[in-house]
Amino acid sequence: MTPDEFSIIDRYFKTLSHHSESVILGPGDDCAIVQVSPGDELCISTDTLLEGVHFPNDSKASLVASRTVRANLSDLAAMGARPHSFLLAMTLPEVDESWLASFSAELSTLIKHYDIPLIGGNLARGSLSLTMTVLGTVPVGGAAKRVGASVGDDIYATGTLGDAAAGLDRVLAGDSHGYLACRYTSPTPRLVAGEHLRGMVTAMIDISDGLIAEIGHLTETDGLGAQVDCAELPLSEELIAAVGRSGAQQRALFSGDDYELCFTAGVQSRDTIVKLAIELGLKMTRLGAITASDCVLVLDEDGQAIDIDGAGYQHF
Amino acid sequence: MTPDEFSIIDRYFKTLSHHSESVILGPGDDCAIVQVSPGDELCISTDTLLEGVHFPNDSKASLVASRTVRANLSDLAAMGARPHSFLLAMTLPEVDESWLASFSAELSTLIKHYDIPLIGGNLARGSLSLTMTVLGTVPVGGAAKRVGASVGDDIYATGTLGDAAAGLDRVLAGDSHGYLACRYTSPTPRLVAGEHLRGMVTAMIDISDGLIAEIGHLTETDGLGAQVDCAELPLSEELIAAVGRSGAQQRALFSGDDYELCFTAGVQSRDTIVKLAIELGLKMTRLGAITASDCVLVLDEDGQAIDIDGAGYQHF
Repeated sequence: MTPDEFSIIDRYFKTLSHHSESVILGPGDDCAIVQVSPGDELCISTDTLLEGVHFPNDSKASLVASRTVRANLSDLAAMGARPHSFLLAMTLPEVDESWLASFSAELSTLIKHYDIPLIGGNLARGSLSLTMTVLGTVPVGGAAKRVGASVGDDIYATGTLGDAAAGLDRVLAGDSHGYLACRYTSPTPRLVAGEHLRGMVTAMIDISDGLIAEIGHLTETDGLGAQVDCAELPLSEELIAAVGRSGAQQRALFSGDDYELCFTAGVQSRDTIVKLAIELGLKMTRLGAITASDCVLVLDEDGQAIDIDGAGYQHF
Repeated sequence: MTPDEFSIIDRYFKTLSHHSESVILGPGDDCAIVQVSPGDELCISTDTLLEGVHFPNDSKASLVASRTVRANLSDLAAMGARPHSFLLAMTLPEVDESWLASFSAELSTLIKHYDIPLIGGNLARGSLSLTMTVLGTVPVGGAAKRVGASVGDDIYATGTLGDAAAGLDRVLAGDSHGYLACRYTSPTPRLVAGEHLRGMVTAMIDISDGLIAEIGHLTETDGLGAQVDCAELPLSEELIAAVGRSGAQQRALFSGDDYELCFTAGVQSRDTIVKLAIELGLKMTRLGAITASDCVLVLDEDGQAIDIDGAGYQHF
């Protein structure tokens, strides 16, 4: 007999709700109950990952779990929030117990690593899709938002950019173990950096749809634009070796899935940011600046403007 | 040109985030931010509705919005929680602007009616599916849970049962306007009753998968069972007229989608519950009692046990 929803939950998901003082009631009731500390605000985000869109068809269960959790946590990182707990609504085409066991094992590893209990969810039958809802906390008034940059602010990105796009090509070609492939399968949500940056940035966002698209969001306020210098883009040696310098720049500018942070900060914060980058052992590269131009201008290594019309991942 | 994700959000969803003092930041950033009052715990639930499973293929957009919101709010009602806000992750097969306009209009009506702002969400392209995550508040320690019933407690249900199943048949036959059809298309989450019942029940659940299945959840603790008397089932005249008394009883016991509340309470609470039912103008019917039998026993009108093996909606 095919196991029903409740036995699947019992077998693969109930153990994932590790205890936490602030989780009053975990999975299994009509709602989960959480207690949030009085001085904090709660940050909440929901993201859907679909097979064939956000991860390749017939992906390993561990890759699906990894990308779902990491992409969602990245939204918390982008606010400077600390992970609290999450809910997971899964739509599965069938009950494949070996897939579920592998999914649940990877989820368990991530839950322990990020100290974020599963507090609830839903199971339905249909084409494979996962909608995760994450909760995190920030001190009252402390969240880093998308709106807040001013003309003259520096624009930064953490880590290296463009790796995940080349990594996806590797995964599709059957290699999921090298550096680039891992940058796609296991992006690192920049939670620690996000919490440290919270107080010093003027605006922050995570790079899920490509750097230029995200800078577009940071400059949506009327009268704001940006200038980005290709020469400054942080590129990994592995990416340059794989696709050449120009291909690496293209991916860094326009490809998504890196889940690095993009943020703006006043020029007076330069030294502090350099020190923070050293302290955390995480590259934080100044790529350009906020301008009063009402558009995002990208300069190539010769200082010539690049046409970037229509760049960035389109969800529709 | 097909509108992209952001213009769809701007056009159909941004206006749905009506202001609320406790919503610090609504849709459009990496996360929403909410401030929960210090004396409250937060109840959170997520539910997915799929086309062809949780609502008929080619359903009207208003029906999809209505059932998604009402079913999710019912989970808050079942904890006795007050609605706070919600997130909505939608997967749409295409950009159908008239569908989106109608969906958004119905959502707007529900948001105002239940005073629950949309604070975030996600849009992806795929087969039609909606995952809603609701947040609600209860005073610390005050939530009504599934676990808590004792031997001898009375079992109650609100409203009438079985209507939604007959209503779905009407909708599938093309009639979506009569009483039964509306019980399917627009179930009433029993939020007010839930808040009032919170302090007087020993356990509570909403009836989404059928009465007997839900009583099964209330009696999952070892050594608990239940006896339910068919003669006591609250049946609407409309349902009896449509499917006969026996057909009505079958639907009341085993069909889902009614979203009434099922709860248990000690015998000393009988008078209080009668008074509350009168005050709220909502039927609260005693259907049976919690027993020490380790199974759910259903007695027909002659006092004979009915075989109920495998009853209740199976999600898989």
